[in-house]
Amino acid sequence: MHKLNDRWFTEISACSGTAFSIKIHKKIKTVQTPYQNIEIFETSKFGHLMAIDGSIMLTSKENFVYHEVMSHCVLATHDQPKHVVIIGGGDCGTMKEVLKHEDIQSVTQIDIDEQVTRLSEIYFPELCESNHDPRATLRFQDGIKWIDEAPSSSVDILIIDSTDPVGPAEGLFVEKFYQQCRRILKPDGILMQQSESPLIHDDILINMRKAMLNAGFENQLTIPFPQPVYQSGWWSATMASTARDLKTMRTIDMSAFKLKFYNSAIHRAAYSPQPFIQAIDNAVFAP
Amino acid sequence: MHKLNDRWFTEISACSGTAFSIKIHKKIKTVQTPYQNIEIFETSKFGHLMAIDGSIMLTSKENFVYHEVMSHCVLATHDQPKHVVIIGGGDCGTMKEVLKHEDIQSVTQIDIDEQVTRLSEIYFPELCESNHDPRATLRFQDGIKWIDEAPSSSVDILIIDSTDPVGPAEGLFVEKFYQQCRRILKPDGILMQQSESPLIHDDILINMRKAMLNAGFENQLTIPFPQPVYQSGWWSATMASTARDLKTMRTIDMSAFKLKFYNSAIHRAAYSPQPFIQAIDNAVFAP
Repeated sequence: MHKLNDRWFTEISACSGTAFSIKIHKKIKTVQTPYQNIEIFETSKFGHLMAIDGSIMLTSKENFVYHEVMSHCVLATHDQPKHVVIIGGGDCGTMKEVLKHEDIQSVTQIDIDEQVTRLSEIYFPELCESNHDPRATLRFQDGIKWIDEAPSSSVDILIIDSTDPVGPAEGLFVEKFYQQCRRILKPDGILMQQSESPLIHDDILINMRKAMLNAGFENQLTIPFPQPVYQSGWWSATMASTARDLKTMRTIDMSAFKLKFYNSAIHRAAYSPQPFIQAIDNAVFAP
Repeated sequence: MHKLNDRWFTEISACSGTAFSIKIHKKIKTVQTPYQNIEIFETSKFGHLMAIDGSIMLTSKENFVYHEVMSHCVLATHDQPKHVVIIGGGDCGTMKEVLKHEDIQSVTQIDIDEQVTRLSEIYFPELCESNHDPRATLRFQDGIKWIDEAPSSSVDILIIDSTDPVGPAEGLFVEKFYQQCRRILKPDGILMQQSESPLIHDDILINMRKAMLNAGFENQLTIPFPQPVYQSGWWSATMASTARDLKTMRTIDMSAFKLKFYNSAIHRAAYSPQPFIQAIDNAVFAP
């Protein structure tokens, strides 16, 4: 049995009895903010690594999968998106992808912790290239409070790009929050949320989707994707809407977007859920 | 930074600077065979675990993804498959899936190490349910030698369900081997091979596909899929043929197969390679 020495960063998933480790060349920075502990490492093969409270957030090498799924799936589903709000997402990678769409008129990103963005600007500059786009607004405050105070029917797409549902992000996975999301979305608006691992967090995913359903989000589509540095290597994002069908997409020319993962085939495959995902759908809609 | 104690089985991927660990309830068995060291563990949350020479082979919880991809993708692609050969695959999970197809007349599985199968019969009995199917033949010998001696144009589908290309499996990733594969396949036959992680083993995948191409397998299709217990959590399988288009599939009623991952939508998504996979295609065909 192999042993890891001090040159490895390890994240343990107690609920699944698994752990993922990444070899570290050196630790670059530790910042304790009012909200969380942020660490930046130089890894041996994955570029920079950001960890928050001991959990891996992203690396330079593989973050493209997550950010492309979180943005382009929902932007291709909405008929005419203009105003996008991102809760969390402080590394700015999702916002950068959203801003590739020229028809987007505004993106407001609300992350509780300004230091996530400041550190990303230094260590993940490629994700922050669009931070000064005139359509972009970066706010650093409590996303739940921001949504509570936002005008009704003002948002086309609301992306919840959060950490796991513990600590600051816990309130982003409950019915009360989704009721407010519903209020600020326009009637044809779409909610998109990172929804954990379908293999090892199926209980979280099911409870999250039940809370969405109770808040009136009757249409839901879970999109599974590989996630090399999160627990189980298999992750998901879930779209939800109150009225509109989620199994249609616009044809958008993304050839200039320099994408590495997203294409319409990946997106369309989610319309026919794998039996494994269908079982999760059934647990939500026909429990 | 978290530390793992002795209750964890860890597999290190030196080439990618990552490691995957799984929590162990107890070690059940260690068998040193003439070929390799096989260990069986009871994990805390993933059921049984089989490791060979320190590398994780499969667990009870997640092997369905790998086995369903390795079997049903290629069986749905071939027009009229009757005779299937599996090299490796000693856990019998791929063979079990193949035998779900009633039109298959014979499956011959050739694994060099009988102990892999004997231990699977005990610790993964659900994968060995079809070992006594009258259409199944289990041989325990060198797969390379078996193929060298097999009659020409005798096989419809050849599945290389091997370990990583080190040790006993090294010779399964080279042009000389693929030439023999081509010889024993019928003209419309299809080769299917596990082809490592597209994220961290892209060099192995590209070299493997170049070797296939040099042996005359001009049509190739790489299918990515999640693989929770292999390095990077993101794996691939590659189909190859000398003549036939690989981007067509038969409509097969698989509703009685009790599948958990495979469906035609997952399969069809591979016809439009993600840009990331397209780059691998380009490195093979337009280097």
